[in-house]
Order: sequence, then C-alpha cells, then structure tokens
Amino acid sequence: MTAACPAPHHEDEVVLLGHGAGGRLTAELLDTLVLPALDGPSGPLEDAALLPGHPDLVVSTDSFVVSPLFFPGGDIGSLAVHGTINDLAMRGARPIALSVALVLEEGLPLSELRLVVQSLGKAARDAGVPVVTGDTKVVGRGAADRIFVNTTGVGQRRLGLRPSAALARPGDAVLLSGPIGLHGTTVLSTREGLGFDSDIASDSRPLHHLVAALAPLGAHVHTLRDPTRGGLAAALNEIARASSAAVEIEERTVPVPEAVAAACDLLGLDPFIVANEGCLVAFVDAVAAEEALTALRSRPEGGQAVRIGEVLPQGPRGRVTLRTLVGARRVLDMPLGEQLPRIC
Amino acid sequence: MTAACPAPHHEDEVVLLGHGAGGRLTAELLDTLVLPALDGPSGPLEDAALLPGHPDLVVSTDSFVVSPLFFPGGDIGSLAVHGTINDLAMRGARPIALSVALVLEEGLPLSELRLVVQSLGKAARDAGVPVVTGDTKVVGRGAADRIFVNTTGVGQRRLGLRPSAALARPGDAVLLSGPIGLHGTTVLSTREGLGFDSDIASDSRPLHHLVAALAPLGAHVHTLRDPTRGGLAAALNEIARASSAAVEIEERTVPVPEAVAAACDLLGLDPFIVANEGCLVAFVDAVAAEEALTALRSRPEGGQAVRIGEVLPQGPRGRVTLRTLVGARRVLDMPLGEQLPRIC
Repeated sequence: MTAACPAPHHEDEVVLLGHGAGGRLTAELLDTLVLPALDGPSGPLEDAALLPGHPDLVVSTDSFVVSPLFFPGGDIGSLAVHGTINDLAMRGARPIALSVALVLEEGLPLSELRLVVQSLGKAARDAGVPVVTGDTKVVGRGAADRIFVNTTGVGQRRLGLRPSAALARPGDAVLLSGPIGLHGTTVLSTREGLGFDSDIASDSRPLHHLVAALAPLGAHVHTLRDPTRGGLAAALNEIARASSAAVEIEERTVPVPEAVAAACDLLGLDPFIVANEGCLVAFVDAVAAEEALTALRSRPEGGQAVRIGEVLPQGPRGRVTLRTLVGARRVLDMPLGEQLPRIC
Repeated sequence: MTAACPAPHHEDEVVLLGHGAGGRLTAELLDTLVLPALDGPSGPLEDAALLPGHPDLVVSTDSFVVSPLFFPGGDIGSLAVHGTINDLAMRGARPIALSVALVLEEGLPLSELRLVVQSLGKAARDAGVPVVTGDTKVVGRGAADRIFVNTTGVGQRRLGLRPSAALARPGDAVLLSGPIGLHGTTVLSTREGLGFDSDIASDSRPLHHLVAALAPLGAHVHTLRDPTRGGLAAALNEIARASSAAVEIEERTVPVPEAVAAACDLLGLDPFIVANEGCLVAFVDAVAAEEALTALRSRPEGGQAVRIGEVLPQGPRGRVTLRTLVGARRVLDMPLGEQLPRIC
C-alpha cells in the first residue's frame, strides 16, 4: 500500500455516478486509475478475457446493482445470468460455468431474496449453464441497497470464432440483431413510475445461441459486442477506437421501437446511448454479410436483425459517423456517462 | 420467476447479519433457499468448485465488504486477492487468473479508491497472478458503503493434490499452519477504536506457496481449509460434517497470540470462531504427519505450524470435540453466526 499518486487526478476528486455508466467517464477512470494499478491490458478492453495458458477459455465478470430489482422482462437475477453469458458470447464462447456472489442488506425480506435466486437459477438452467460456486455476504441496514449480484463466467470458445473489438476492418458490414433501447427505458420507467413499462419490457436474454448461429461463418465474423451500458453509441465507439476504424451508421436502419422513442423523447434521452441486454452488434466481412443476416434471423432473438452500416475504406479512423434521416452526417460520440445510473 | 415458496421459511423473515457470518445461519440460508434455487451441489460445499469438463481447473468467488477498508496488516484490496487465492489453494490449486469487480459509492474519494486498487494490484503481482478482467459499477450516496470488491479466481490444480472437505479419514492428523484470531480481532479493534490494533495485525496473506510445499505428499493430504468466517470452529465443523468424521482437538496446542486472547476476553469473543485470513487447516494421513509439518514449517507463513488434533477411529461422527486445558471434553459447535459482521 502506498500513498503515491502518479495519475493526474486531484486528490479532492470523488467517484461520480457517471464513472459507472460505461461512457467516457468510465473509460477515464479505468485508463488513469484502475488499469495502471492492476497492470491491466494495454490492448483493447474486451467483453471477456482469455484465460492464460488456456486459449480456448475466456472469463468475464460483472456486478449487477440494477434498481428496481424487478422490472418488466426480468429482474436482477436473470439479468446477472444473461449479462455474463453475453459477455462470454461476444468472444465467441459458450458458457460452461457461472459463479454467483450476493451482497445482501440486513432486513431484506427472504421472500424477495428467494424470488431473485429462483429467477437466477431458472435463467441459468434455461441457458444450460451450471452455477458451480457462490458466496453470500450481509451488510448492515443502509450499507447496501437490498441486493447486489456478481456473476463471473467461464466460457469455451467455439471452433473458428475468434471475434475481438480490435478486428473490425474496412469494408465490414455492421449488423444489429434487434431493436435498441428496451432495457434502459424499461428500467428507468419502472424506477421512476413513468408508466411506459406497460408498453415495453427489457430485452434481457442470453445471446450465446445467436452467436452459435454465426459460428459457421468462422473468421468472417470480426467483432461482436452487446451494447449494454452506454448503448449502441458506446459499443460502436469502443470498436471504432480499438480497430482504428471509420464506422458509418445509417440512422434510419436502426430499429427503435415506438414506445422507446416516445419514452426517450419525454425523458430527453438518446436511444443510441440507452442500455440493451438482448441484442448484439456484429462486424462481418462484406462477402459474408448476407449469410450472417440469414443466420441471425434464423433464431427468434435475431428475427429483426438488420444491416445498419459499414466500416468505410477511408474516413476518420476511430470515429463513428451517423448518416441522419435527412442525409446529413454527424459524429456519434462516446457518451459522457452521466445519463442512467443503476441500469444493470 | 415464480412466487412458489417450497422452503420452510415464513414470508415475514428477513436477512440477518448472521446470515453472512459463515456459521449455522449461513449454512441454513444456503441449504434452504439459495442452493435449491440454483441446483447447487448436493455434496460438500468446497472452497472452490471444479470447472465442468476441465478437471484440472477450479473456480472460486468471494465478495469483500470489510469495514473499515484499511486495517493493520492489510486492506480490502489485498484481502480480496488473498481470500480468493486461498480458496483456490484449498483445492490444491495455484491461481492462474483473477477477475475484479468493484461496486463504488458515489462520493468516494478517488484517492481512497486508488489506494485500494494499488494494494490489490500489488497483492496480485506479489502472488504472481494476473488480473485479467474487471467491472466497475457506481451506486448513489447511501446505496453502498464506500467500496465492495468481488474477486473470482481460476486455479490449476497441482499434480497429485486432490484435497476435499469430504476426504478426512479416521486416524488423520489435524495440522494448523499458524496462530488463530489475528484477522478478526484486528478488524474489529480498528473498526471500534479499541486500541488493540497497535499490538496486532491481520494475518492476511496468500497460502498457495504453503500448499505447494505440501504437494510432494500428494494423496496423503486429504483436506485443506482456511478458517476464515466462522473461524477454526466453523472450518473444523464443515470438514467433520462433510467427511462424517469424529474430530478431536487438543485445546492447549492451538496457538492463540496473547493480544488476541486479551482482545477476545474483553470483547467476549471465542478465538476459535474469529476469522483468519492467513492460516490453513490440513488433514493428512498419520503416516505423513511429520513430513507435512516439516513442509509447512519450511515456509515463513507456516513457521509456527503445529499438530492440533486427530480424527478419532471411533466417536461422534460429524462432530468436533475439544479436549480442554483441564482435560475435560466439550463439543466445539458450529458457531451460530451473529458475532462479527463485515470482517471480510
């Protein structure tokens, strides 16, 4: 333990809600404070890491602090399973084991805890992945908000699938497996009692079968990413940056459900930066784009898959450009990150 | 998600601090609520689980909620590394990768966060295990207490070492690698400002080298356990129960540092149920007991290793008996669990 402070932070700075929102503030916290201390990877941050000495295995961890615990389409238990399965899937892996660690607030009704763990167990069973180990801690009243869940997963990579955020290439087609904005607007609407949650539900679901459907395309699948915190804008920006790619998205092709658009309008949110928990972005070689779309659409969870853009042969590397409805071009920036706390 | 409630709990029951203390309440919560929902293992609960399809790999997860964050001998960062390494080591494994997930409270000084992650990084480096992936979430003020850390580890089992809580056998020698009670009394004394922390320090440290020293004994090493939450009493009772063994401990042989004894006297604590983070209990075949002691003592962290008891050829199976200083015998029970919240 040392008091040395090499990073350029003022000592009176504090953690902000936006540091956890998956945007620029999160990236800054990681780059300047966390990763240097942990000897973190200098390469791109992937959804899941390779296990040293076992190149066919990947590991991913996520803590879930979503509020409220229950929302249309899911709850913190099912979300914790889907979220980690999906991070593994984005590296081309099928999940082989999950760990579950609970932090509970004293006074939490056991009936509520039971609903959460039953939902978690059901989600794991439905996805075919065993929960192999766990941990339970309890803190006093007021020292946590009800339940926090950590899931960590180990996945086995599918033969031939080696997607990485750094592998997008000029000419790639950008595919999206389904509509955006459902999870974030549902959680927010439920939390704030806005009433939209009668029309919409979270898209929380496991995506490993969808990735399996892409497996026959093998090395044509360059990059997979599930646009969770920070939404589609953050996912595309992370890929553009990691691959030094000029990504261009056709705005009118991006499916935004009506209820999501209405909720976002009311709340002053941009659907492009709202979290999703059940769709993925795929960057695939142009020659395989049609085959990839067909593969995605072969699964119910990819039934609405569409092509939303491409990696330009030339253009501003590391940037995402949106061709708007009226034909103009604007930069789709990495969100700053203050928008939606405790969305997952 | 279902509202069915098969377990014999009243719906007005709530989570208690003792549910997280590693004793009988924790076991009851796991047995009646968590494990049935998760299709958990029906066999003994081990410190780390085998990875399905990869019998040489084990996985373990732990969330750390210790308060205060910093204490003599360690902090939540180093503790989170040591705790998970040790759970892997108790299955005969060396750590090959760690994940780290942080839940941060809005308003936490970045300077404090930096100290924690620097300590975490140093502990991982010192132990030779890379942090391969991570996650950061932020919750609003008052929704968490400063920092919670989850670490999950993957370990590779050492050739020939296959210890399990269920493998203790009649005739086994019970060895203890060092003095007990230091971690729990240090944290409690620091938290409550009792002043003992000038005399004592947590024993928090990694134990995988100590386990490596035992590797040459191979299958003679039946059971390894680090007596953390619930202390030596909980660890021995878990082993006795999992192995249906009659364990007898000679009280005078168990090393309790003077300062620990004094603190426990004052606080009304039993050193046998105070948490440790840097010692282990080993059940080894009697023929290998001397060799095992020599191996433990060959490492600094095992320098004070002693033989503290044996598994009786006959006796009350699943129970731990203490031969007291005056020669009487009493049952050393599984602690109930309300004693020491947020000790790790």
